[in-house]
Amino acid sequence: MIELDLIGIGTGNPDHLTGQAIRAMNEADLILLPRKGDAKSDLIDLRRGICANVLTSSTRVVEFDLPVRDAAGDYHEAVGEWHDAIAAAWKTRIALHLPDGGRLALLVWGDPSLYDSSLRISEKLRAGGMAIDVRVLPGITSIQALTAAHAIPLNALAEPVIITTGRKLREHGWPQDADSVVVMLDGGCAFDTLDPQGIEIWWGAYLGMARQALVHGPLAKAAPRIVEARKALRERHGWIMDSYLMRRDMRHGT
Amino acid sequence: MIELDLIGIGTGNPDHLTGQAIRAMNEADLILLPRKGDAKSDLIDLRRGICANVLTSSTRVVEFDLPVRDAAGDYHEAVGEWHDAIAAAWKTRIALHLPDGGRLALLVWGDPSLYDSSLRISEKLRAGGMAIDVRVLPGITSIQALTAAHAIPLNALAEPVIITTGRKLREHGWPQDADSVVVMLDGGCAFDTLDPQGIEIWWGAYLGMARQALVHGPLAKAAPRIVEARKALRERHGWIMDSYLMRRDMRHGT
Ligand SMILES: C[S@@+](CC[C@H](N)C(=O)[O-])C[C@H]1O[C@@H](n2cnc3c(N)ncnc32)[C@H](O)[C@@H]1O
Ligand SMILES: C[S@@+](CC[C@H](N)C(=O)[O-])C[C@H]1O[C@@H](n2cnc3c(N)ncnc32)[C@H](O)[C@@H]1O
Repeated sequence: MIELDLIGIGTGNPDHLTGQAIRAMNEADLILLPRKGDAKSDLIDLRRGICANVLTSSTRVVEFDLPVRDAAGDYHEAVGEWHDAIAAAWKTRIALHLPDGGRLALLVWGDPSLYDSSLRISEKLRAGGMAIDVRVLPGITSIQALTAAHAIPLNALAEPVIITTGRKLREHGWPQDADSVVVMLDGGCAFDTLDPQGIEIWWGAYLGMARQALVHGPLAKAAPRIVEARKALRERHGWIMDSYLMRRDMRHGT
Repeated sequence: MIELDLIGIGTGNPDHLTGQAIRAMNEADLILLPRKGDAKSDLIDLRRGICANVLTSSTRVVEFDLPVRDAAGDYHEAVGEWHDAIAAAWKTRIALHLPDGGRLALLVWGDPSLYDSSLRISEKLRAGGMAIDVRVLPGITSIQALTAAHAIPLNALAEPVIITTGRKLREHGWPQDADSVVVMLDGGCAFDTLDPQGIEIWWGAYLGMARQALVHGPLAKAAPRIVEARKALRERHGWIMDSYLMRRDMRHGT
């Protein structure tokens, strides 16, 4: 039997780790750390640092190369195959390092519930016949790192908020049902496809990390600053992760 | 100058506190704890417990009676007046205990960004002329406690999710733009106003606390169980806080 802890570690600030996360790391027999290729080596370094800082027990830490997603072809199909490949990679390491079962921990970026595939991959292992018991330990999400950094509420008073992706915003425009919109997984600058009139934006990159960058303002003014900052930062660091919250003047609402 | 830390403490599990939160509590000169009346004395007990457990410094802890919101009349007006009253209550304690300024900390339930008024109340103090510098420290939200307890993702793969209130769900029905909906601040059982066909629900009350209660299933079957559990638990404990995630079969989607 494998007891699998999916541990949310926040988005780069080791101080965002919860007490529960630290204890679970120490109670694990094995922690698997994914290597995501050179461009994102900061991310494995960060996880290594967390392990070095919080582990006081005999937990083994093993690194493995994360399979790469096929960028071509159908999105859902490519993601499905990618998850299969990751499941196989986990399985190999489990067979090797926990042949008689035990407690495995994975350090999940942010919170395991939010645009993360660890739960789906665990499900694949279970469906494939592995005796696996999954526990989720929440972590601070990039959305919370964003609102904390800007010291702003997520929602307007008693109003809804929608969390969506750059792709959806691009395809469908501003959602019907909410005047507050969080955008994640935006490979470009999907806000640029909106009529900026009456929209305010709070943007953040590398949230929680020392190199955190923030921009805030009316979308019309902030958009070009974000486009520029994003380009310069991506060049400097080799990769970027950013998210933003936009709020629409409620008189424009439905 | 008042340095105000709004510290997210999670929703009842002291193990969900972050390292940053614990440090900020210890660095504060003063922590103000609101008393919310007898029915919810569990909540002040919980905050007292957290202070007792994590404070190792000379931080002073002062309790005060939280003004009560006027349940009658216009909702937004009543909330506005209530926030004014809370701002006045903070101001009195600040004048009394930090006459020369200093570091004040408030322990905010869950995360300060999510359906919480502390940021708006701080804004009122600033608007009223107080020199105040607000910092937000994120905490685990009830949404994360919910998805962790059920070990489920918040969003379907690369799909949006909307966070809304019981009132909005009741008034507007299922939102247009998302097949995953989180409902908070539901004084009743707003899910009962939906056609349950094709909807799955994950419900949780007292999330993070020892008395945590969970129900999961197709809405048609789960709804009566939740209605019953909610009534029994509220009677037993004198109060209840619950949240739920619903997911609609995507073939019903737009
Ligand atoms: C695969 S999702 C993972 C989200 C993560 N589970 C969480 O809880 O935040 C990756 C997306 O999260 C956002 N993100 C993650 N970390 C971030 C950071 N440090 N700063 C800004 N955005 C971040 C970006 O929108 C990015 O495209
Ligand atoms: C005023 S809002 C505060 C939310 C809080 N800031 C957070 O981050 O979760 C109160 C609502 O949050 C949800 N909630 C808070 N604590 C909860 C708990 N322990 N269990 C279930 N729901 C909870 C309920 O929907 C409740 O009506």
